[in-house]
Formats: sequence, structure tokens, C-alpha cells
Amino acid sequence: MSESIDFYFDFSSPYAYLGSHLIEPVAQKHGREVNWHPFMLGVAMKGEKTFPLTQYPLKGDYSRMDFDRTARYHNIPFIMPDEFPKVTLAASRGFLWLTDRDREQAVDFAKSVYAAYFVEGKDISDPDIVAAIAADAGADRTAFLAAVQDPEIKDAFKKSVEEIVFERKVFGAPFFIVDGQSFWGADRVGQLDEWLTTGGW
Amino acid sequence: MSESIDFYFDFSSPYAYLGSHLIEPVAQKHGREVNWHPFMLGVAMKGEKTFPLTQYPLKGDYSRMDFDRTARYHNIPFIMPDEFPKVTLAASRGFLWLTDRDREQAVDFAKSVYAAYFVEGKDISDPDIVAAIAADAGADRTAFLAAVQDPEIKDAFKKSVEEIVFERKVFGAPFFIVDGQSFWGADRVGQLDEWLTTGGW
Repeated sequence: MSESIDFYFDFSSPYAYLGSHLIEPVAQKHGREVNWHPFMLGVAMKGEKTFPLTQYPLKGDYSRMDFDRTARYHNIPFIMPDEFPKVTLAASRGFLWLTDRDREQAVDFAKSVYAAYFVEGKDISDPDIVAAIAADAGADRTAFLAAVQDPEIKDAFKKSVEEIVFERKVFGAPFFIVDGQSFWGADRVGQLDEWLTTGGW
Repeated sequence: MSESIDFYFDFSSPYAYLGSHLIEPVAQKHGREVNWHPFMLGVAMKGEKTFPLTQYPLKGDYSRMDFDRTARYHNIPFIMPDEFPKVTLAASRGFLWLTDRDREQAVDFAKSVYAAYFVEGKDISDPDIVAAIAADAGADRTAFLAAVQDPEIKDAFKKSVEEIVFERKVFGAPFFIVDGQSFWGADRVGQLDEWLTTGGW
């Protein structure tokens, strides 16, 4: 069986949201599974001395324009949230807990969290809001809320983020690793597609 | 007549070098001229608090790999120079002086400077080396060397860089502006092409 595509994302990243839409048809075309890995972009930013895109003096305005223009270019629904960025620990820990139980349910949950933030403008830093999304995906709401506060799960997520950033060297989002190749950015999905088609160049 | 495509670049930027190759067929396809504008990426970086890509702890290694992989993807000759980045004031001032005399000659010169750095590994921060390139493009070597030290040309280039960065809000390279739309990055040439084809979305 072919290797899956590792997809690293932060629930608060507009380009990772766009990337989550763009990678799907490419993965299907090549018969590859997408392995979703939430992480905290903030941890990578600290080491890299970078900031959320919208906070740069000039790049900030450009980015807001480009999120929107690129979403329309690809026909992906997108409304820039008023409050940006969000710390999305509850959603990320919840994803980790869900994925141990039911991977498909976890991916449904992740897609719904993205739509809640980048289409419906909901506050996805609020554990109650993400718990409701988890419940819609079929999870137990109370168990979900307990899980996102569970020290074991907190620790597992922290370790996972450290491994992602410092061992797999994932410094931005979206970030894809497949067949040993790293691709950073929604705008590298085209090269990733071509890499899987040709076997590399 | 259609508006030309303003192309902002730094002689030391690998992605701007790639962008200079990618924009040509797109401009030709749409019957648009490419207006080359050298600037100092360092001025933008100072305001944005960013650094040359290769200096980031994790993004640095990725960038070196991606310059090369992206060049091969597009079949553009590219060898990462050992010394990077370079301060390319002489080449930029020389371009400004040349472009006032003969725009086509200036563009030939710019392309040759890019090839000298990113294919032949020459030191394009050295005024003598860029003067030899200018002479190959048909300019007078002695007059070129005098021009790059001329206070009026120094001042004109300084003012041009400030206008490019602070008024046109060009914070990175390559940066393209056409029909009022800004496109940052070699990986936005596809959207630029589509914008000119469709009139926008």
C-alpha cells in the first residue's frame, strides 16, 4: 500500500484551511490517505522568530487580501474571521483524543472546526463550541470536554507538537510530507501532485 | 494599449530570479510588457522585521531545498550560490542608469546579472563584475562604473526603493503589480496569468 500524505495544520491558519481543501482531490487521485496532524504554529513561530502573517506591517494587509483572493480562485468558501488568530488547544487536543477512537470521525470533526471558523465565524478557541462540533460528528460531548482537560492528553499533544516542529521540522502550515518529500504552503500542492504523478524530478 | 506588468525584484533573491523566468511567457501570452524594477529587499525586511530566508532555523534548510526543487520543476537552470545573500547596489544603480538610456539593454543586463549569480556563481556584489556584464550588454564599461558611484544616481535609486517599499507596499520579491492587483511570490504567477485571462474573480 502507498504511503499516506502527512498533513500538518493549525486550526487557526487560513492557508492550512485552504490546503485542507486542496489536498483532498490530489490524495484521491493518487489513492493516498491524508493523515491529519494538528499542531501549534505558535511553537514553530517562537523558534523561527516569525509572527502571524496579519501582524506584519505590509505583508499583513497583503495576506488578508490574498487569503480571500486565493480562496475565490479555488472556489473554496472563506470569510476572514474578525478575531484572528485563535489559540486552538481544545480543538487540537480533542482531535488527538478522537483520532485514537475513530479516525474518520476525527477528520469529520477537523473539517467542521475549520468551517466553523473560516466560514461561520465561530469562536473555535471556546471548548464548549468545539465540543458541540464534536458531538455533531458523533462523539460524546461530556467525554470530549473531559478529554481536552485530561493531563495525559495535554501532555501527549505537547509532545506531538514538539516532535512535529523539532524532529519533522514543520515550521509552517499547511505542511505536507509524503514519500520523504516536504512541501510547505497551499501553493505547493501542485508540485506535490506532480511529484506523486512522476515519482519526482 | 494594455498596462505593463510591474516586476519588482532584488538581484540577490532566488525566488525573484525564478519569477523573472516565469513571468516572461505569461507576459508574452497576454501581450503585456514586463517593467523591471530592482529594489533592496533589505529595506523591506527592516520594516517587516523579517530576514533572508536561509537565515531562519528551520525554514532556512527547507528554502534551500525548495529553491532547487522549484527550479528543476520549471526547468530553470539554478545553482545556489555559496555566498548568499549579496548586497547588489552596484547592479541595481547600474540598471537604473541603463534603463534611462536603453530599456532593452537594461533588461538584457538584468537577465545576465541573474545568470551570473544563480547559474555561474559570480560575485555580483563586485562593481567590476557587473560592469563587465554591462559591457557585454553593450554599455560603456567606464561610464557604467562612474554611474554606480554618481551621487545623483545613488539618490535616485534610494528614493525609488523607498517609493517601491513604502508607497507601493512591496515587501517581498518577486512582486508583480498589474491592473491594480498585487501578486507576491514566484508561486503567484499562475494566479496572475489567470487574472489576465479572465479579467479577475
